[in-house]
Amino acid sequence: MSASRATIREIVLTPIAFRDPPLLNAIGVHEPWALRTIVEIHTDAGPLGLGETYGDQGHLERLRRVAPTLVGLDVFALNAVRAQVARTLGGTVGGDRHGLTGHINLGGTIDRVFASFEVALLDIQGQLLGRPVCDLLGGAVRDRVAYSAYLFYKWAAHPGEAPDAFGEALDPAGIVAQARAFIDRHGFSAIKLKGGVFPPEQETAAVQALRAAFPQHLLRIDPNAAWTVETSLAVARELDGVIEYLEDPTPGIEDMGRVAAGTPIPLATNMCVVAYDHIAPAVEHKAIRVLLGDHHYWGGLVRSRQLALICETFGIGMSMHSNSHLGISLMAMTHLAAATPNLGYACDTHYPWNSADEIIAGGALQFVDGALPVPTTPGLGVTLDRDALARAHERYLDCAIRVRDDTAYMQRFHPGYSGVLPRW
Amino acid sequence: MSASRATIREIVLTPIAFRDPPLLNAIGVHEPWALRTIVEIHTDAGPLGLGETYGDQGHLERLRRVAPTLVGLDVFALNAVRAQVARTLGGTVGGDRHGLTGHINLGGTIDRVFASFEVALLDIQGQLLGRPVCDLLGGAVRDRVAYSAYLFYKWAAHPGEAPDAFGEALDPAGIVAQARAFIDRHGFSAIKLKGGVFPPEQETAAVQALRAAFPQHLLRIDPNAAWTVETSLAVARELDGVIEYLEDPTPGIEDMGRVAAGTPIPLATNMCVVAYDHIAPAVEHKAIRVLLGDHHYWGGLVRSRQLALICETFGIGMSMHSNSHLGISLMAMTHLAAATPNLGYACDTHYPWNSADEIIAGGALQFVDGALPVPTTPGLGVTLDRDALARAHERYLDCAIRVRDDTAYMQRFHPGYSGVLPRW
Repeated sequence: MSASRATIREIVLTPIAFRDPPLLNAIGVHEPWALRTIVEIHTDAGPLGLGETYGDQGHLERLRRVAPTLVGLDVFALNAVRAQVARTLGGTVGGDRHGLTGHINLGGTIDRVFASFEVALLDIQGQLLGRPVCDLLGGAVRDRVAYSAYLFYKWAAHPGEAPDAFGEALDPAGIVAQARAFIDRHGFSAIKLKGGVFPPEQETAAVQALRAAFPQHLLRIDPNAAWTVETSLAVARELDGVIEYLEDPTPGIEDMGRVAAGTPIPLATNMCVVAYDHIAPAVEHKAIRVLLGDHHYWGGLVRSRQLALICETFGIGMSMHSNSHLGISLMAMTHLAAATPNLGYACDTHYPWNSADEIIAGGALQFVDGALPVPTTPGLGVTLDRDALARAHERYLDCAIRVRDDTAYMQRFHPGYSGVLPRW
Repeated sequence: MSASRATIREIVLTPIAFRDPPLLNAIGVHEPWALRTIVEIHTDAGPLGLGETYGDQGHLERLRRVAPTLVGLDVFALNAVRAQVARTLGGTVGGDRHGLTGHINLGGTIDRVFASFEVALLDIQGQLLGRPVCDLLGGAVRDRVAYSAYLFYKWAAHPGEAPDAFGEALDPAGIVAQARAFIDRHGFSAIKLKGGVFPPEQETAAVQALRAAFPQHLLRIDPNAAWTVETSLAVARELDGVIEYLEDPTPGIEDMGRVAAGTPIPLATNMCVVAYDHIAPAVEHKAIRVLLGDHHYWGGLVRSRQLALICETFGIGMSMHSNSHLGISLMAMTHLAAATPNLGYACDTHYPWNSADEIIAGGALQFVDGALPVPTTPGLGVTLDRDALARAHERYLDCAIRVRDDTAYMQRFHPGYSGVLPRW
């Protein structure tokens, strides 16, 4: 019985940038570069722990404030690490939204920062134990984790650039073609359409076109709160029996509750419930039947397992949310999903859009039949490609982007564009 | 990085009995012998894991049905172990209530059986890691865990026996004397009075006598649902400003909600919320502000940590419940309490009433200033005294008790006694 001592010796934070296609959403369009921060936790005991988190400037600054205060803490002391994060942040509330993940409060800010370190600490714990991270979460209940084909309306190219490999998708035929390409390549059996871009009639037509083209696939649409209650109910009538859930049709817990009361389709969210404080009001208003978890903002993998029990306790199903990300995040998501019994849906992932710029050794992770096998090697099961990481950091230094702003990028080409929601 | 493989080779279940004084409660009086089951999980890798759980016949039979089906499972596969427990039990719902812990449903039955094994598995995990069990729960946030002086009205002796060492306590003066003895010996700074035995006027007089005798001590009273809503509200008016919480004044979530609406004193429970299914209704009816957790029926230590996050999420404080128990349970409770940041109250424990018949090596654990130091040795930090265990098992075989029944025991001496609640 060897003692597994390990304390944090140094934390290295490396902001990176990777190519992101011009994916359209309810508040604008993805910029040419997506940002992330790679977290390395070095210990006095050998193992190196890896994490991946947001790269927006505000978040990065918070990580930089917190990181030195964690040096000397035990890698198993997750409670103490979170308390230290809270102490260091004081009352700081993050204003950056990392895209479309709803209003951030103090608890959510702490959880975002804590999660950035927690995954790396679990990576170390797993390596010390000789166990995959999922074993620290109760053990895998499945040997593969299914992901969904995450479809976006998109331009053929970023303005001024050559067309990308993915092609244009601005109507139902384009969306079906995109789905075909994703499914042929990755084998996904669930499809999510990011909506909120075009009038709802056009987007429901795209869903119906997907239904016709892929009669066996599970379908979802996520307009990111672009619709009023009335529009949401009209779309729900149209899509009843067609989709497995309707994600964030309208803004706010109360209006989500009004939509939920008027449709048999389960409502899902990663916008109106994005911190623990939002759960009680959502329960009170019966606003959702599916929560899209995301360890990056729900406080890491262990707290996400606890979140899953909260959902089970209140009869809420679980799916998984994604932002633009690379392989360290994907592996963390896979360990979590593997160890979450009540995860009832294929997880969302942007990975196919971004994986060409992978920074882990071995290059991009490959989906098999729409799923990733659950890792069985110690820790997270990934190591860094130092050259690729250095290149990604150079891209970060070279690109002008420091805070994701889909709306401002859209306004460069459409000056009258407004990101105010709901739009229809 | 050594791999920490360990699978379950054999599970040994040893029912034991230990002396229990004639402690009075709302449904009768404790019998001369309290029952528990000691769980030993043997692995192919060396470490032996220990657990302690209920000894009632029905529960013991369920443990015996489940135990062989767990052989061969990985000691880290908590999700798989719980799923196997559920499969083996099928739809079996436990009818035994182990005293006054409320209605047991299917989920609660699974959690009771699973918890019996989970603690022993965590003991093994901790030993493999060279870490105390609290490190598997996020790490200790305190270095000592405070317990409360758990006072009971009691007879001087079990009928027909010589007086025990604790003395009679049947009025306020007797309760104050009992508190004095417990505090002198163990240093407790919180006091819980088990009520529901005498008319409420007499019990509130006892609380006021405790307040006068121990002006700095935190006080609670638990009548085990012996009072109507009206009586509860009358007592609450009398004790406002005197007690830190009022535990289970009246039966049922709805009536607890009615009492809660009429008093500023926080209501606590280990009766109307004893399984995950009860939490949503309790939240809906605003029935409680403090939950007494208990890993023995909330599904073990990891799920109890998850329960703590549920409570935090819904603004419910946490305390800890106890049945008659020995040192393995006390150590498990201490690890859990150490790693639960939002545990805001001294934990209940029957331990001083029962510790003379301890079965762990080294004999009874000792409170220091009303608290136990958090263990820092690998695993739970306890080993068996095999001779003491053998004696305790002999006592089990010799005593006629197989199911705890405080009411039937009371009726042997008071044939007209009824355990129906509420009584006043």
